[in-house]
Amino acid sequence: MKFICDGLVLSDAAVTVSKACSTKTTTPVLECIKIGAQNDVVTLLAYDGEISIEKKIKADVLEEGEICVNGRFFSDFIGKVSGMNVVISTGDKGLEIRYEDSESFMQALPASEFPSIKGEAGEEYFEVKEAALKALISKTVFCCATDESRPILKGCLLETEGGKLHATALDGYRMAVSQCEAAGGNGNVKIVCPARTLTEISRMLEGGDETLKIYVAKNMLFVSVDDTVLTSRLYTGEFVNKSNIFPPAFSTQFCVSRAELIESVERASVLIRGDKNNLIIFEVKGGNILITANSEIGNVSECVKGEMSGKELKIAMNGKFMLDALKALDEDKVKLSFNTPIAPFTLENKDSQESSYLILPVRTTA
Amino acid sequence: MKFICDGLVLSDAAVTVSKACSTKTTTPVLECIKIGAQNDVVTLLAYDGEISIEKKIKADVLEEGEICVNGRFFSDFIGKVSGMNVVISTGDKGLEIRYEDSESFMQALPASEFPSIKGEAGEEYFEVKEAALKALISKTVFCCATDESRPILKGCLLETEGGKLHATALDGYRMAVSQCEAAGGNGNVKIVCPARTLTEISRMLEGGDETLKIYVAKNMLFVSVDDTVLTSRLYTGEFVNKSNIFPPAFSTQFCVSRAELIESVERASVLIRGDKNNLIIFEVKGGNILITANSEIGNVSECVKGEMSGKELKIAMNGKFMLDALKALDEDKVKLSFNTPIAPFTLENKDSQESSYLILPVRTTA
Repeated sequence: MKFICDGLVLSDAAVTVSKACSTKTTTPVLECIKIGAQNDVVTLLAYDGEISIEKKIKADVLEEGEICVNGRFFSDFIGKVSGMNVVISTGDKGLEIRYEDSESFMQALPASEFPSIKGEAGEEYFEVKEAALKALISKTVFCCATDESRPILKGCLLETEGGKLHATALDGYRMAVSQCEAAGGNGNVKIVCPARTLTEISRMLEGGDETLKIYVAKNMLFVSVDDTVLTSRLYTGEFVNKSNIFPPAFSTQFCVSRAELIESVERASVLIRGDKNNLIIFEVKGGNILITANSEIGNVSECVKGEMSGKELKIAMNGKFMLDALKALDEDKVKLSFNTPIAPFTLENKDSQESSYLILPVRTTA
Repeated sequence: MKFICDGLVLSDAAVTVSKACSTKTTTPVLECIKIGAQNDVVTLLAYDGEISIEKKIKADVLEEGEICVNGRFFSDFIGKVSGMNVVISTGDKGLEIRYEDSESFMQALPASEFPSIKGEAGEEYFEVKEAALKALISKTVFCCATDESRPILKGCLLETEGGKLHATALDGYRMAVSQCEAAGGNGNVKIVCPARTLTEISRMLEGGDETLKIYVAKNMLFVSVDDTVLTSRLYTGEFVNKSNIFPPAFSTQFCVSRAELIESVERASVLIRGDKNNLIIFEVKGGNILITANSEIGNVSECVKGEMSGKELKIAMNGKFMLDALKALDEDKVKLSFNTPIAPFTLENKDSQESSYLILPVRTTA
């Protein structure tokens, strides 16, 4: 294999695909980028067993072939020759990189060791605007589980129905549901997509008005943006049925300025920082929420005014979950809805119901 | 104690003095800021046993007094009420912080537990322009030792002589010497100042044309910038005599573009990242330096052109030390001066000799 290309183009491609390189593996080839040259195209491909990212770039191919090199080292090194033309070739020592009067070598593995990526794009797809998908991902993916105790919860449920794309994420303590317009598609899709895949897709998107076509086939997802193709394994199994979780009615509702509530919870969070439970207490009473937090360091006691309807209530919760949800909402006013001190409560924008957050309260002995 | 002041002014002061709060201590009061109110002035003071920082701010003092609170929590908390007027008072529970309709408490310690800071400003001083001192610190302090094996090397030697301020820092493997104009003073100062003190002083300075007066008394240093006073313990003992270390003559000299050499050493550093010795090899030959580095990952071999005089030479060194020194120099061209593969070598700007870096080579078996 031998090709000449612009260092900057190669560097950009290496950075993009290296996101799919494995960082924790005992199989060195999963840390690699497979580089292949054919006709006037160079293809870079990385795959960690779950996600693969492939990018094609134009190059002056002198000799066809393919090889695998460590993705992190390759992308860092090529980033430092991005101002020059680069000649990449395979030699006795591995991969040879020539630029100006210099030449460097990197250890390489034969392309035959690279795992084959199973699955085909298939016929089923849905369409969504890039900006809408980016927003949907940022509003839900932070609620996915990060531990392995229930692997399916590390993914986000995506469903198309009635011209909408619905996303649901939950980690056992809180849940996010959000929706956006689905621009098109064929049939109804229902998949559980790894959170990491959604984060990588979001990173690939410019976030403009373009329509993205997402193909789904038996347990696999395929997205193509410009010359970059991402494929991902999907999770299989039964996802939690969200309709059983959201309370059908509430006995207390409270509308409040989102900014004021964020500031208040942030101050409370300073003093409970380091405390395991990260516990703050809301007391909904009269037209106010009294927000308190106690720790060894001290205590905060603040009063935020709002509009209340229903019964008075005192409830304890994880301050971080509260802040995450408040920051993911976007209207000036938000609506909190409660039933009892031990029942899940919800947060929504006051006017739109596109996104809802549900949080389990913390039972306190006090 | 009770006073009212602007949250932003109090927050700025708390952030400034909290730099002198201890972070690793079994003595809680050393993690504290002592807050004192007298007349119409509030004084914040922190002291970790080595450095103290004190800042005075205007406030509406309703009741005089003093108290100690955890510096990190206090400055973080006050940072979140910086948009309001704040009422600070002592109460049964400790320190009370009131703002708008809210009130918070922080655990506090009596001011009597705060250690007294010994030492007086004294008569001896030297003067230096703020920008010149900032530059001097950034050019030398990174070469101070960070381990405890020879505590005095954690400091930087500062000497005034003949209208100049000289700084020397070394860690046993490399040395930095630099000088700037001393704007004035009385007598010749010779002190070893903790690197951390110099970093904090640099952070306090705007870096303009103002003249800074640094007072030195028996093992203590005193600097005052606006309403902030920093005091620091100085190190005592015999510092290494630098005149014995710098080689009087060199058998090989090489002038080269600083930017080209930095790029080349950076590329070499990518591939040796993770290798303990961080070893790169310079081969000075003809009008070139051949730069090579080898690791399990691969190897780099680059050629940088320059102007050579004297004998040919091959020498191995720590790539990080090389990069640190090259980045601290500032001219387009730098001069490397060598004797033998096992003798210390120097780096300087080609034209000015204000700063010199000396690096011990690494002996290799190859």
